[in-house]
Amino acid sequence: MSNSQHPHDPLVILMPSGRRGRVEPGTSLLDAARNMGVEIESICGGRLTCGKCKVRIEDGLFQKHGITSSQGHVSQPTKEEMELLQNMGSADCRLSCVAYVQGDILAFVPEESRAQKQIIRKSATERVIEVAPAIRKVYIKVDEAQLGDHRGDWGRVQDALREQWQVEAQTIDLLAMRKLQKALRDGRWKVTVTLWHDREVIDVRAGYEEGVYGLAVDIGSTTVVGHLCDLRTGQVLATESMMNPQVTYGEDLMSRISYVMMHSNGLEKQHKAIIDALNTLAARAAKAAGIRSNDIHEAVFVGNTTMIHIFLDCDPVELGGSPFAVVNRDPLDIKARDLGLRMHPGAYVHVLPAEAGHVGADNVGVLIAEEPYRMQDISLTVDVGTNAEIVVGGRDWMFSASSPTGPAFEGAQITYGMRAAPGAIERVRIDPATLQPRFRVIGEERWSDEWPMGPEVPLEDQPKHLASGICGSGIIEVIAEMLITGVILPDGRFNPNNPSERIVWKERKGNYTLATADQTTTGEPIYVTQSDVRNIQLAKAALYAGAKLLLLRAGMKKFDRVILAGAFGSYIDPKHAMVLGLIPDCDLSKVTAVGNAAGDGARIALVNRHKREEARHIARWVRSIEIAMDPIFQEEFVAAMHLPHASDSFPHLEGILPQADATPVGAGRERRSRSARQSGA
Amino acid sequence: MSNSQHPHDPLVILMPSGRRGRVEPGTSLLDAARNMGVEIESICGGRLTCGKCKVRIEDGLFQKHGITSSQGHVSQPTKEEMELLQNMGSADCRLSCVAYVQGDILAFVPEESRAQKQIIRKSATERVIEVAPAIRKVYIKVDEAQLGDHRGDWGRVQDALREQWQVEAQTIDLLAMRKLQKALRDGRWKVTVTLWHDREVIDVRAGYEEGVYGLAVDIGSTTVVGHLCDLRTGQVLATESMMNPQVTYGEDLMSRISYVMMHSNGLEKQHKAIIDALNTLAARAAKAAGIRSNDIHEAVFVGNTTMIHIFLDCDPVELGGSPFAVVNRDPLDIKARDLGLRMHPGAYVHVLPAEAGHVGADNVGVLIAEEPYRMQDISLTVDVGTNAEIVVGGRDWMFSASSPTGPAFEGAQITYGMRAAPGAIERVRIDPATLQPRFRVIGEERWSDEWPMGPEVPLEDQPKHLASGICGSGIIEVIAEMLITGVILPDGRFNPNNPSERIVWKERKGNYTLATADQTTTGEPIYVTQSDVRNIQLAKAALYAGAKLLLLRAGMKKFDRVILAGAFGSYIDPKHAMVLGLIPDCDLSKVTAVGNAAGDGARIALVNRHKREEARHIARWVRSIEIAMDPIFQEEFVAAMHLPHASDSFPHLEGILPQADATPVGAGRERRSRSARQSGA
Repeated sequence: MSNSQHPHDPLVILMPSGRRGRVEPGTSLLDAARNMGVEIESICGGRLTCGKCKVRIEDGLFQKHGITSSQGHVSQPTKEEMELLQNMGSADCRLSCVAYVQGDILAFVPEESRAQKQIIRKSATERVIEVAPAIRKVYIKVDEAQLGDHRGDWGRVQDALREQWQVEAQTIDLLAMRKLQKALRDGRWKVTVTLWHDREVIDVRAGYEEGVYGLAVDIGSTTVVGHLCDLRTGQVLATESMMNPQVTYGEDLMSRISYVMMHSNGLEKQHKAIIDALNTLAARAAKAAGIRSNDIHEAVFVGNTTMIHIFLDCDPVELGGSPFAVVNRDPLDIKARDLGLRMHPGAYVHVLPAEAGHVGADNVGVLIAEEPYRMQDISLTVDVGTNAEIVVGGRDWMFSASSPTGPAFEGAQITYGMRAAPGAIERVRIDPATLQPRFRVIGEERWSDEWPMGPEVPLEDQPKHLASGICGSGIIEVIAEMLITGVILPDGRFNPNNPSERIVWKERKGNYTLATADQTTTGEPIYVTQSDVRNIQLAKAALYAGAKLLLLRAGMKKFDRVILAGAFGSYIDPKHAMVLGLIPDCDLSKVTAVGNAAGDGARIALVNRHKREEARHIARWVRSIEIAMDPIFQEEFVAAMHLPHASDSFPHLEGILPQADATPVGAGRERRSRSARQSGA
Repeated sequence: MSNSQHPHDPLVILMPSGRRGRVEPGTSLLDAARNMGVEIESICGGRLTCGKCKVRIEDGLFQKHGITSSQGHVSQPTKEEMELLQNMGSADCRLSCVAYVQGDILAFVPEESRAQKQIIRKSATERVIEVAPAIRKVYIKVDEAQLGDHRGDWGRVQDALREQWQVEAQTIDLLAMRKLQKALRDGRWKVTVTLWHDREVIDVRAGYEEGVYGLAVDIGSTTVVGHLCDLRTGQVLATESMMNPQVTYGEDLMSRISYVMMHSNGLEKQHKAIIDALNTLAARAAKAAGIRSNDIHEAVFVGNTTMIHIFLDCDPVELGGSPFAVVNRDPLDIKARDLGLRMHPGAYVHVLPAEAGHVGADNVGVLIAEEPYRMQDISLTVDVGTNAEIVVGGRDWMFSASSPTGPAFEGAQITYGMRAAPGAIERVRIDPATLQPRFRVIGEERWSDEWPMGPEVPLEDQPKHLASGICGSGIIEVIAEMLITGVILPDGRFNPNNPSERIVWKERKGNYTLATADQTTTGEPIYVTQSDVRNIQLAKAALYAGAKLLLLRAGMKKFDRVILAGAFGSYIDPKHAMVLGLIPDCDLSKVTAVGNAAGDGARIALVNRHKREEARHIARWVRSIEIAMDPIFQEEFVAAMHLPHASDSFPHLEGILPQADATPVGAGRERRSRSARQSGA
């Protein structure tokens, strides 16, 4: 098709974009659209197979668009085209690849026919992501082998890719090459090839085949979450999560690193544990989505540096002490099979880059999901997990750091803690007058005070899940509510003067009854113990001190907004987070909870390859600071043990917290007396 | 160092090249040499470790070079340098990397210090090959990890490679990355990295280490030959050969392809057989060279297309019938571990390209070893093997083809045939008067008529090996000698009128006694049978017909020279080859026997990466022709069954062959009567 328009050439207008242009008669509508900058999807490249390029020719009076009628202005459909459209239930449409322009046309391009699809990230911060994955399938017609044509089957496939898709495929995976000859002959020289970055052919299948899938995984120290995505539409087809089985080797990063140092096969064991878990996760997600693990052609991974080291079977021992050297900071592309991952045999694994020794790919995931580096505002981004990553800054500069909070926020080290799974208490409210709690568990819509209980309740009305434990968001909410309602004091002790029946005293320590025996799966009550409160205090102190130190280093006293990320059940309620002192005091309307943003970042990098380049750039651009060894961090940590009270330091909590009527006990003294008790004194 | 020379700057002259130039005072002699285009070897890059860059400062009166004396014109050596030189036994030299120019200097660069070494291919056609392998080791000093330096260990290695060697290494093999952190710390931040094409780091070892090795392998249908080479010097350290274990699945290519078609695990079995054999071969070669298989960092493979398909675990079934489509024509680089080869875990395999369905990497190996494409002469290149590849042409055009000779030339299908191994008869002469043979076996220098035999001979004087069979070159020589001496007639029959005691008649068929019972390991005589003669006739007819047809297609009647390649024991004696009619008649002085040129080609591509590019280009440039299906080939084949006689068609054999005194029996009739016999008539 010539690009030079002639004033008598037919006019084509494409809705809903309204783009218009003149094209030579006989041009296919697909080519016409491409020339006008409207990308229509096509997998089969005009072979009447995929049906992805359908458009609706609009007819009637469209004088305002300059076209009176499209009738008769497009070539007649063939029987083959009509049958395909009828089978698709789209008899009112045409396939743009074989509909040729004969006169002025007004056509409508339906959403599903548009290439460069967009998905909207479903979270508090809605964001539009263009679907532009590293993996795609294309259908090609390959020249048949002939005596005297010495190109070889792979050479013929390369030529077909070049001619039909303008793709210069340089290599073919050995395993795909092994299947190539049979696929070509089984498919009568028509095959669907799967391309990685348009550079390498990683799969070949006979005939036409659609459906290309990827897995995005956040390897948390405590929880592993995977999203199985349709790489053509960008949609999440299944989300699966599981405990990181490495917890048996240590709950936090340091204990896992120690385990590697102390056991000659410690790395091997932990590496095998996570690979096995990932294989289970992939298989489950595939099953849930109705595909096979073998259909997964790419996976993107995020995780903290220790998790990524172990995932790669690299010794994490250097991360256990200063100067915390990572083996590799940059993004990696590795064959999944080299890691023992059971996906498609030619599948690649992409690992997002890290920023520093303890600010890993998970934080980069949060950053590319939330994009604080595009904002004029100065934001504080906090990703709460077994380690908390903290980033301060905006479009001109950013500082990041990692703080060792431990796994309490994820429900570990909590007496009745559990991971975010059906039956986990994820939301809690305590009535300030009666101190009676109500809660919601994952898997049951109704709050516990609306549960119809008793033998007379029909089965279908009973709660789908009783409570079996408390997950991360639940523990944050219940302890915040306990503080708000005065069950505990700002120093973390149970209020000895509170007469509520919900507070049970054992060995002079308070226990708050969150769920009664009839509300739980075990038939035993679920308590929040003094020790749980202490563990949350330690965790939140680490987080708060980290954020404080980073602000100090950035020379900042204030920030414009807070982004609160964390992968534990519900999004964290900003109010409760501030009540507990997880984040510095600020206007609550400026706090956004974004859930598992690290996992979202992995998903975004999976569906959009350009975001990987952005990640590589950002990871090097952010200035990472080591804080754990800083003496100021230790000071701030001790000071932050105290739970907030509505004072000068937390003016925004006024009206939420009660007046501190009990004299606060110094955190330092409390810690000393606690360790004194622990040592048997 | 500045490139702008000043007339008062010191003058440096390097011998033996005589290159001269002025350099700024304080320049190291190494840098001075580089600037003058003299490459001096250095592995450690000036760290006083490798000692590879030594030069001798010449002193005395050198007025003819413009320098009166070098005395005092070079910096004083440090104690460290002197110690290293003394340990190397080179106290009269200096290390050019730490010897700084202070005045006019005349220096001598010894052969072993020169980079861009050259090796001379030891064969009839001596050829100089520059040593420029794809693999090299470099020693680097890496920045120590420091708090706040977030590059990661791999990033620091990349920077060191860039700064110290101007190498942009893009990737590191996952297995090397796993060893990286420990190697850096064990080596106190000095490591030796192994680079593949200066692009990928495939190995890292603590501290300084030299020695980099590669394996070149020719996978023949019958015989597998491997050369283990020192990639720094280009020298062959060990050569090992073995039977291709696939022979149990069929002696020729077609029967192996049939085996794959008839057995569901036929490919798997044959693939495993060759991989196992290659692992044994590599281990043996490594042992012979005093290294481990793990020290082999690259391997280059040649072989016919069927052998390469099976080696890659690609189904060869398409090669079994027209249009003989190969899966891939181009050169390949594959991780050895993906093929199950036990070498260094990061090692690469390079497979030379093929020309066509039946003209494979082995022929490309012959071409890059012999370079007929550089000659103005038109040459006929014949590589004799289970399939014979034939190439006609010169620098302007070349045609190639493959002819199915079967394995007789390699000693298979021969009653007492064996591969080229100690004890194999490789040379034969028959006395025309007495018809007594004498022969030489591999592993024993003396001809058989010089063997002192009998119980009285001291052990050390006895032959190191008795005869245990006949290898390829032996069978060609003995049958040619039998024809020259009239033991057999031009139609291949044993001369019934020859009364020699050496000819034993069994069931009316002649047998020639080549070795008597006392000359063999078994204590039984070794015969050449009528059937052996027939098999050689069939093989030579295929070869001759192929060459004839190709000449016809090229529109040629004559050629200027013949290159005779083949991997069976000794080089083929051109005279005997022509006596048997393996090659068309021509001036014997224009025939060159070059031995296993395919294996030489693999070795050349191993030590010189530029030759791989040449191979890629040549493989596409040569025009390959399918001849086996051509009716003219069948005609020529039948006609060529006859053994040559000094007639119009072989004028150059006049005086070598006796007058054909027996009336020749038509080859066609002979074939019919033979098949009639075989069918029991």
